[in-house]
Amino acid sequence: MALDNGIAEFILTAGRQVDENLSLIIERHKEHVKLIECGNDEEAARVAVETAKAKRADILMKGTLNTDVLLHAALDKQSGILKKGRVMTHIAMAQIQGYKKLLMFSDAAVIPHPTLEQFHAIVGYTAEACRRLGIETPSIALTHFSEKTNPKFEHTISYKEIIRRAGNGEYGNCIVDGPMDVKTACDTESSEIKGIISPVAGNADVIIFPNIESGNTFYKTISLFANATTAGWLEGTDVPVVVSSRADSVESKYFSLALACFLSNNDY
Amino acid sequence: MALDNGIAEFILTAGRQVDENLSLIIERHKEHVKLIECGNDEEAARVAVETAKAKRADILMKGTLNTDVLLHAALDKQSGILKKGRVMTHIAMAQIQGYKKLLMFSDAAVIPHPTLEQFHAIVGYTAEACRRLGIETPSIALTHFSEKTNPKFEHTISYKEIIRRAGNGEYGNCIVDGPMDVKTACDTESSEIKGIISPVAGNADVIIFPNIESGNTFYKTISLFANATTAGWLEGTDVPVVVSSRADSVESKYFSLALACFLSNNDY
Repeated sequence: MALDNGIAEFILTAGRQVDENLSLIIERHKEHVKLIECGNDEEAARVAVETAKAKRADILMKGTLNTDVLLHAALDKQSGILKKGRVMTHIAMAQIQGYKKLLMFSDAAVIPHPTLEQFHAIVGYTAEACRRLGIETPSIALTHFSEKTNPKFEHTISYKEIIRRAGNGEYGNCIVDGPMDVKTACDTESSEIKGIISPVAGNADVIIFPNIESGNTFYKTISLFANATTAGWLEGTDVPVVVSSRADSVESKYFSLALACFLSNNDY
Repeated sequence: MALDNGIAEFILTAGRQVDENLSLIIERHKEHVKLIECGNDEEAARVAVETAKAKRADILMKGTLNTDVLLHAALDKQSGILKKGRVMTHIAMAQIQGYKKLLMFSDAAVIPHPTLEQFHAIVGYTAEACRRLGIETPSIALTHFSEKTNPKFEHTISYKEIIRRAGNGEYGNCIVDGPMDVKTACDTESSEIKGIISPVAGNADVIIFPNIESGNTFYKTISLFANATTAGWLEGTDVPVVVSSRADSVESKYFSLALACFLSNNDY
């Protein structure tokens, strides 16, 4: 799809035998695809990361190998593409039937249980990505299962500090609020019934999840049950990394790549 | 709705002024509604729990007060309705457009991060509830953001033990498997693409969540974006407790109550 539409040139590092179908595609587009055959998935991941690090590629994209194999290579202290002190996180964008606008969310795939500083990075990245996509003042909801700050749930304490920092302008133009649940964040009626007064409630451009289990549940649930089209990438690394799930649709993989291309062309 | 259909008699313990609308409904159905006016939400919760404990009510149902106010009263060691050593958990049932059958899930509202023994209780309760609803051998998926058991995520270790116990027949007729993500649990195609061989994959009757953040995210997401109709209740207490969210639809509250009535009539 990406080749047919000519949105990118490809360097394919293959850790397994290339099947007949893929061979035909490579042959048909041989001017735009370079194949590097590798011994196994680990080597393929390492070679792909090296290629990006050497600036011979603008984007890194995952194929059928396990995400953690690619991440292991990308995060290697010597040969990886994550600068020291940077936080790497997964960001996704969803077009959901029944929601009035695009919805960005994080983190569904990388950071298990974000610390305050990881939340800080996530909010900064998503605010910036929204503005680059044309949303001048993004509304960012920090989600939880309720609307109460509770020391038993450490992320709600982090949220408080993040909201303070947002108020100080640390994330540029944006409105950050929470904790609130997913329904409150995205549905005006629900937030009104609950009597929640927040500039973000019912109007979120971005929803931040407290942990990977909830983020991933949201991702898989909207894909499966809400006819959502999603695009996802990793942020914080030297180049955007597209880590579509093997079970994602072709369309989703294509949109992820296209979005990464767009962000990459923007010097992102 | 419940009064019009005559499915239950009501004892209303009101912690706030009863509004005009509700007064009219009470007046119209005065043979089936008893109103007890209380000073505040806390007292209303306590009186409702006492009524259930004294077997003058078969079901306890939450109104517009905060869930934790009702739970506080229900869990009181002296006057509460949770027997010592019993685990209380929230169970919900969803009818989701695009899923081939009803889907039960837990815990979206009560237990923050289930321990092994809490997972044990949850699996036991859901297996039993499914069988009572006519599903002879329920398929129960233990969800996670991936398919890998990983000591960094304690619930995946609990899952291993739960699956062992299920194999030993501790939960009666049922099939338990995991960890797997929500999509793998409910979509045959996704699980096939990922090459996952499991009798539960793509066919779950029940999905168990690793923590309240993910369970609640699922609950709110299917309600908001997947046109789901849900019903929910608390299990483990002396009587079923219906704890619909204030933002739930009237339909959802009605189905929750109807399901609780059904389970209650079954000596549940």
